Amino acid sequence: MPQLATGFRVEQGVPSSCEFEIKAPQLDEVVIAISHFGLNRADLAQLAGHYPPPVGASDILGLEASGEVVAVGPAVSRLKIGDRVCALLAAGGYADHVVVSEQQVAVLPDEISAEQGAALCEAYATAWYNLYEVAGLQAGERLLLHAGASSVGLAALQLARHNHNPVFVTAGSDEKISYCQQLGAEAGWNRHQGDFVAAVQDWGGADVIIDPVAGDYLAQDQQVLNLDGRIVVLGLMGGRTANIDAGRLLMKRQRIQGSTLRNQPLQVKGRIMRALEQNLWPLLRTGDCQVIVDEVFPVTELHTALTRMRENRTQGKLVMAW
Amino acid sequence: MPQLATGFRVEQGVPSSCEFEIKAPQLDEVVIAISHFGLNRADLAQLAGHYPPPVGASDILGLEASGEVVAVGPAVSRLKIGDRVCALLAAGGYADHVVVSEQQVAVLPDEISAEQGAALCEAYATAWYNLYEVAGLQAGERLLLHAGASSVGLAALQLARHNHNPVFVTAGSDEKISYCQQLGAEAGWNRHQGDFVAAVQDWGGADVIIDPVAGDYLAQDQQVLNLDGRIVVLGLMGGRTANIDAGRLLMKRQRIQGSTLRNQPLQVKGRIMRALEQNLWPLLRTGDCQVIVDEVFPVTELHTALTRMRENRTQGKLVMAW
Repeated sequence: MPQLATGFRVEQGVPSSCEFEIKAPQLDEVVIAISHFGLNRADLAQLAGHYPPPVGASDILGLEASGEVVAVGPAVSRLKIGDRVCALLAAGGYADHVVVSEQQVAVLPDEISAEQGAALCEAYATAWYNLYEVAGLQAGERLLLHAGASSVGLAALQLARHNHNPVFVTAGSDEKISYCQQLGAEAGWNRHQGDFVAAVQDWGGADVIIDPVAGDYLAQDQQVLNLDGRIVVLGLMGGRTANIDAGRLLMKRQRIQGSTLRNQPLQVKGRIMRALEQNLWPLLRTGDCQVIVDEVFPVTELHTALTRMRENRTQGKLVMAW
Repeated sequence: MPQLATGFRVEQGVPSSCEFEIKAPQLDEVVIAISHFGLNRADLAQLAGHYPPPVGASDILGLEASGEVVAVGPAVSRLKIGDRVCALLAAGGYADHVVVSEQQVAVLPDEISAEQGAALCEAYATAWYNLYEVAGLQAGERLLLHAGASSVGLAALQLARHNHNPVFVTAGSDEKISYCQQLGAEAGWNRHQGDFVAAVQDWGGADVIIDPVAGDYLAQDQQVLNLDGRIVVLGLMGGRTANIDAGRLLMKRQRIQGSTLRNQPLQVKGRIMRALEQNLWPLLRTGDCQVIVDEVFPVTELHTALTRMRENRTQGKLVMAW
């Protein structure tokens, strides 16, 4: 285990390479030598100054990574040096080493590459947590996924289809919708062709909506949401001011719920990672769920990769390799 | 058991006396000879044409009543003829007889009068359901009750205080606030003195808000709601159009949930009534919770009583006696 690591922190709106000290792992912490890390839209928000890391977290960017355990704290019980792992991080993923509680770490099955490992944590943890813990998606319920071709959208789509929940996606191009349909979406709507209300109503409405858009979408979500339906807001791509119809909210007993994962307590992250090991790992092994990696870049091309994500030209996850 | 009953249905916006046929009780149904029934704000909405009874329910007004069981269906297991009971109804309470599933009925303890029995079902069922099932109020969490001196407000206040949850109330007069404080509210705010945001923030904010107002209140609710807080919307006294801050919703992981009880399935109503028997009856017996009856009117003064409710000059429940 080295004493110094290399990583990227925010300086004047761009990721700036730096060295930082790695402390010895305490209690349930492990040190991971990172081989790959995943990029997330939240990283762009942090670069823009809108999304500081949680109190006490590293100022190094990055929410997920894969690699090998190179040191373990005295209370570590589930992991050992040499394990090939992935980690769901509050910060610190844009680096060659990270120190993290073993609760946030899972051992990768042999069938899952390190590239895929770096690409699955945020997407599947977010999808799992919001579908099953926050929204409480039940058998047979109908699911509307906005930004269906995003990493979270593709993860939620596959989980839902495996459980036989009908899925409608919205996305920004016909190609993205076709791709979602190949992965099991029943129907889709290209947002450049107007609002989605009539199309989703014709499809049969939704019981659960995963919405990273908010803004004007919320009132439209309400119009397509069935009795006792739940809207989970994961992002603000459409802006933060929203008009809602409290009458419809009341009479249809609708729920609108904001959800973030990054600043959840360790206990919640640990519970999600254990749920993924138990429920997702078997599906990844059999191919019933896939990890959609758009492209793997060398870390020297971090700027190029971030620009591509900023311009919304992705279908699945961008991964960086050391 | 008579063949004909007397009741009140809506005709041209006012309650109109009528006779209707009582069918023999089927399966788990019982017939109750009603001695008293409670008035609810929802009745005013039904009179105004805004709140039709659920599909399949009687067109006779009324959501709660007390009286004596006079006939039982062949599958009834919990009740017998002669039981002194109260009932949570989807409709049919403004009458001298009602036919209802025994699931919606509870036997009154000896310590509870028929007047109180007619006054407790809606208020305590609504308070219980929304505090503990919908909002999931936890030990130590802070509760904001709008319309704190309403029947639901007073029931929620007493349940919450018994469980040591700190309570802040808003109401329309200093007298109502003083009354709530006598019943255990820590603090209150007279809505005629401006918006409640600073007062509730100074108090420490709220984890759960029970809001029968909606409209402009929702954005203010968001400002005083703590991380992971829940707003339960029970009514639209402030109007149905609301602006919300989706950014705050997201970053504070807030939930806004509409909730109605009347059109819930029988299973839900039965579960709530069993919860009240188990949890509320002991508190009513010892006086730890009280049923707040504002006044008991003879049924000949129904118009007078409804006018008083419409003019918001109540503190607790108005009850009618046959």
